[in-house]
This record gives sequence, structure tokens and C-alpha cells, in this order.
Amino acid sequence: MKFDILTLFPAMFEGPLTESILKRASDKGLIEIGLHNIRDWALDKHATADDSPYGGGAGMVMKVEPLSGAIEAVKEKRPGSKVILTTPGGRPFTHQVAQELSREEGLIIICGRYEGVDERVRTLFVDDEISLGDFVLTGGEIAAMVIVDAVSRLVPGVLGHEESAQYDSFADGLLEYPQYTRPPEFRGEKVPDILLSGNHAEIAKWRRKEQIRRTLASRPELLDGIEWSKQDKKLLKELGLDP
Amino acid sequence: MKFDILTLFPAMFEGPLTESILKRASDKGLIEIGLHNIRDWALDKHATADDSPYGGGAGMVMKVEPLSGAIEAVKEKRPGSKVILTTPGGRPFTHQVAQELSREEGLIIICGRYEGVDERVRTLFVDDEISLGDFVLTGGEIAAMVIVDAVSRLVPGVLGHEESAQYDSFADGLLEYPQYTRPPEFRGEKVPDILLSGNHAEIAKWRRKEQIRRTLASRPELLDGIEWSKQDKKLLKELGLDP
Repeated sequence: MKFDILTLFPAMFEGPLTESILKRASDKGLIEIGLHNIRDWALDKHATADDSPYGGGAGMVMKVEPLSGAIEAVKEKRPGSKVILTTPGGRPFTHQVAQELSREEGLIIICGRYEGVDERVRTLFVDDEISLGDFVLTGGEIAAMVIVDAVSRLVPGVLGHEESAQYDSFADGLLEYPQYTRPPEFRGEKVPDILLSGNHAEIAKWRRKEQIRRTLASRPELLDGIEWSKQDKKLLKELGLDP
Repeated sequence: MKFDILTLFPAMFEGPLTESILKRASDKGLIEIGLHNIRDWALDKHATADDSPYGGGAGMVMKVEPLSGAIEAVKEKRPGSKVILTTPGGRPFTHQVAQELSREEGLIIICGRYEGVDERVRTLFVDDEISLGDFVLTGGEIAAMVIVDAVSRLVPGVLGHEESAQYDSFADGLLEYPQYTRPPEFRGEKVPDILLSGNHAEIAKWRRKEQIRRTLASRPELLDGIEWSKQDKKLLKELGLDP
């Protein structure tokens, strides 16, 4: 999986991409991350990448020529890559979207800054618009990190067995069950007896029930789309729910 | 505004927090970001911060003692700070939540890793649980960056006049209007004439109409909560909508 990031601030990616799981995935050649400074494609000697908006208003807009140059240069090396712009009007980024993107050959991610990018970047070059959520960031760099991170971990081999994505929240449509590790008691708060029982069938049942209970408490709308097993239906009844 | 980040990977924050707007805000003393390595509060000489889950299963769980040590040490210096855990079951992070958090004295953000943190961290220490969205990251570090970034830019003085948060997407409940800058024509794609007209009243009207049109196309549910002005109602009619 190839990620190419077009940014005015390549140094922002130093820490996030050179630590931990993503670092290991790069070292193993499972993912490849290219950072491209948009200014390198500016047309003037001052490397101007932004300019005042037509029609007036505060702030600056990212110019179309440096971005088009950057996109086309990267596309030439990676014709199969998809061009992504993060923008509040895009489709919401979810586990399903991350799964879909993890099956692409490569992603070229444009990091917007200031008041945004010239509209013609969007109409001429962008294949997919993605929104991280209903909030505003100082720029698209951290949004790009989120996408690279969430997508990379779904690329086969990136997570070891020990970090399997199989039990993720959302992987089965529900939130995760509560986790405990040693000590068995901390400031009067005890680990539930069932988890110390060694009875694996009962533990599995308890965990599934906790998943349903938590999802019901915090995110009841997630329960709607789920196909319940016979076992689940029994748990739902125990929780006072009509499956 | 004080941010304290509790993490196993402090080096991940090097690039994101030492560049651009956040760097300038730190230099000016408008925000202060403390990075704390959870391992420093581990109880054994191997600085163990995680352990196998009770009840079995893949992965590791972050232990309660190092985290409680870290939280309490930071809280002693910053008694007014709010302890935040990013978790898929938390309340969704939005512009409104960012605004609310920007009015806090300080935030202590716990970065989860692996299969999550021992449940007792949540029950004993956490004031607020926040979800970035329905996706899974390799850890809470990038989620913490999102929160620090989105909250910081709302702290008075962090954004200059030129980057005002006043015209953000979501600040008025709508998506942003399209932006253009020079050149007036690029590969046959022209800047809309109205933006070159110099007629500021008409430009304002066009932009407002584009905001409504875009929001209607991509995020119609955002239109529900809005109080429309008389002028807006005229625009809605022109767009074939019943205000």
C-alpha cells in the first residue's frame, strides 16, 4: 500500500510515521509513505503556494498550479492511486471506508490549509472527498495521519497476531467489552469474578453481553443493522431487549 | 490552555506539535503542551505498562497503576484539568465539543494503545470520554493530536485575524462556500464571474447560496437546526426549498 501525502508541512509527519506500528510496517515494506512538499511545484521563485481569495474575505487559498503539479508528478509514478481530499463536506470516515481504502493500490492525500484549496483542484483532480467529522483542524495534515493510520492497520500483515483487528470496535458492529489486567483489585475496584473463573464459554458470553450493553448505553443506533445469532437473542432478552 | 498528554510514545508528537500554528501558539504562551511517558510511573524495573487481559484473548491491556500514577502526578500540578479518554464509546467529537473544551482550564488526555486501558482507569479517573468517529486507530496518540489541534485553534489569540475561526465550516452550521484564487482560468475551468465583479453584496449572497447548496447536497441533516434569516429564506426559495 502506497501513501503519498501532499503537504506544505512535511516535517509534521516526522513523529507520527516514524514510531510504533507504522514504522514497523514501513520497515517491512508493507506500506510506503511518500511526503511531497507542495511548494516544490510552485511556479515562482518565492515558492508561492497560496494567494488571496477571489471575491475578498479573510485568509488565503491554496493555489491550483502547485497542487496540480504535485498531483500529476505523483500520479505519473503511481497511476493506480486514488486522490483524496479531506474536507468537511466529504463522506464520513468510518471503519467501512478504511476497509474499502485498504484495498486500493495507493492513496494520494492532499492536505488542505488556510481557507482551503482552490475549487478547481477538487473538480479536476480529486477522486474521493472524506470528512473526519464535524470539527475543524488547522490543516489537513493530522487528518491525513488519521487516514494513514486507520487504513494501514487493516493492510494484511501490518498488525501482528497479538494486535489482531478481528476484535476491533466496529469490526462486528458493536463497541468493545471492558478489559482488565492485573492486579485483581485496585483501590477497592475488583476485576469481575467471571474473568478469573477460567470458564471460557461463560467468559465469552459475559463479554458479548457487555458489548451489547455498552453499545446500547452509548451508541444504540449501532444495534439497528446487526444480524443477531440465536445466542445473541438470548442475551438481548436477558438485557430486557426485544430482538 | 494546558494540555497534558499521557502516552507510551511521546516522540510521536514531535512533528505535529512543533510546526505551524500550534508551535506559534506555544511560543506565545497561549497554549502549553506537556508530554508524559506513562512508563515513568511503572512499578517494576522493566517499566511494564501493559499485561495480558484477564479472561484471555489476544493483545495486551494497559495497566491501571502506571496510568493512575501518571494521572495523579499531573493532576497535582493541574488540579483544574479535565481527564479525557478517547474511546469509540465516547461522545462524538464535534465543533461544539471543541468549543466547550476550549473553555476548560486544561485537558489531560490519555492515549490508549493495544486492546485498550484497564476498565478501572475509566471508572476511577476519567471525566470525559470522547470518540473521534466510527473507526479504529493503532493508538490514541493521533486522536489526541486531533483534539489538541481542534481545541487550540479556538483558544483566543491562537489564530491570527487572517485565519479567523469565524468563517469555519460548522461555525454557522453550514459547510463552507467554494474558494478560488488566481489564475482566473485554469485548463478551461473559470472562476465564477460574480467573484470577479467587485459587487460585495452580490458576492456575499452567492457565497451564502453556495453554502446552502453544498450543505444540502452533502449533509442535508445539518440544515435542520438552523434559524434562517429573511435573506436566507429568499435564497432557500431560489434553490427550490421550502424554508
